[in-house]
Amino acid sequence: GAEARARQDGAYFHSYSDVSIHEEMIADSARTGCYRRALQGGLRPASGPEPRARVSLLRGRTVLDVGAGTGILSVFCAQAGAARVYAAEASAVMAERAREVVEANGLSGRVLVLRGRVEEAELPERVDAIVSEWMGYGLMYESMLRSVLHARDRWLKPGGLLFPCQAELYIAPVSDPALHERLSFWAGVKEQHGVDMACMAAFARRCLMNDEMVVTPLHGEDVLTRPAMFAAVNLYTVTEQQLEELGGLFSVSAFGIATMHAFAIWFSVTFPTSAPTDRTGDGGDDDGQRATRSHDD
Amino acid sequence: GAEARARQDGAYFHSYSDVSIHEEMIADSARTGCYRRALQGGLRPASGPEPRARVSLLRGRTVLDVGAGTGILSVFCAQAGAARVYAAEASAVMAERAREVVEANGLSGRVLVLRGRVEEAELPERVDAIVSEWMGYGLMYESMLRSVLHARDRWLKPGGLLFPCQAELYIAPVSDPALHERLSFWAGVKEQHGVDMACMAAFARRCLMNDEMVVTPLHGEDVLTRPAMFAAVNLYTVTEQQLEELGGLFSVSAFGIATMHAFAIWFSVTFPTSAPTDRTGDGGDDDGQRATRSHDD
Repeated sequence: GAEARARQDGAYFHSYSDVSIHEEMIADSARTGCYRRALQGGLRPASGPEPRARVSLLRGRTVLDVGAGTGILSVFCAQAGAARVYAAEASAVMAERAREVVEANGLSGRVLVLRGRVEEAELPERVDAIVSEWMGYGLMYESMLRSVLHARDRWLKPGGLLFPCQAELYIAPVSDPALHERLSFWAGVKEQHGVDMACMAAFARRCLMNDEMVVTPLHGEDVLTRPAMFAAVNLYTVTEQQLEELGGLFSVSAFGIATMHAFAIWFSVTFPTSAPTDRTGDGGDDDGQRATRSHDD
Repeated sequence: GAEARARQDGAYFHSYSDVSIHEEMIADSARTGCYRRALQGGLRPASGPEPRARVSLLRGRTVLDVGAGTGILSVFCAQAGAARVYAAEASAVMAERAREVVEANGLSGRVLVLRGRVEEAELPERVDAIVSEWMGYGLMYESMLRSVLHARDRWLKPGGLLFPCQAELYIAPVSDPALHERLSFWAGVKEQHGVDMACMAAFARRCLMNDEMVVTPLHGEDVLTRPAMFAAVNLYTVTEQQLEELGGLFSVSAFGIATMHAFAIWFSVTFPTSAPTDRTGDGGDDDGQRATRSHDD
């Protein structure tokens, strides 16, 4: 029956198996690899006689990981030479996992897991950097960003680094061949089962093409125009108030004829690649070179 | 972040798009084809001079469809020659869809859609047959069976037919290669990202291998013994009380060595192939020949 399938499908994917979510995030190599390269690849001038010597950006620094989960980002930081990493994790279950991971990597001396919400955390000191994977679908959907901003304002030293430091939102009209197939389903029932169900297509369209956001994979060829950036966020300076008003006008121009099913939105985040004292300018958009694009699907 | 992905995955598959559930059920050709063959393929002796003449089992009969959804089963019945079909559907949205489907197939004269719960329905007469696709995962999970039994007791004529008329539950130990892959994931993170996360495997096992029921596809070669039937239900006679106690002992014997990850359970339902007066015996298990096995995945 319909009710049983609806409920069970939801339970299957929205499982209380917390492991599934973390598995999915770590298996996302674009995401995890990007954070690793950003945290371990950035360099700054070494103190000492050699003028061109460089060390890891985080070497000897202190870091706060907001929403540490399994602790993998904290481990990346410690591997990059951070002196101390505070891994804040609200879930008691995951905080225990993070402790195990830190221990297994021999880093218990430098990575401290703090169980609880970062808003309630008490650190012994302000930190040189904050790292967090806070992004939700479409960047802002149920994101942890507010917690990150709170931590920034309370715990980040002046001139400290944010990983990531900038976010941009893009939009483009797209075709969705899978959706097209689904809408076509009802016209085929007559041939398949001898019952004319073409009238269901209008209902299907109302259910599947509305203002609800869905997460779905797309291919490049399904993007029908050059993407338009419609919002950008400087994470060093943005306020909660500005987040409420996030958005902007956009203009796109198609260069062919295709069926448009939806607007797709996605984000890109940028990581700092230099130390604050290395920066030219006033901390505007040129500071962070895009190490690698990190997209939601 | 974890929270965003968890919530959105659930919403995506457990969508409020009612169309998705009905699409999935009708696209399940084993299910839909089985019902069609059962409702349109059964024959009974024709009244008249010719001793070997046969007509459709449902010809000229009255039928109640419990939980009609899109109305497809009711249409099958009308196409088989039923004189009147009462299609009971609790959802106002789907009742309207069923009316449209019935109309599109020219059957508004013989199929009456009754919006509301079947427990509250008022039919002008008792019916010759009841049809329903009530089965949940593992047969009983959030199934509509209680509503069907209520309708049976209130509206089915003595000697009337039930589609389906019997259900059986099977169990066997299985391997789950996909699960095995997932458990192996954590040992591979060291090579992939330089972080030893083997300690996460125990947590993964606790999350993924417990007493929670999951719905997952399997292949025949993953079933490790001959299946054991551990429960059978005669839908003509079963009581709600008996449903509470549904279950039984089983014994299986493996003929090789393989990794067992779980017990799989599935059901089979049987449809009547003859009219009550055609039956031999007293209405026991021999009455319905298995037209086709109908399985949940």
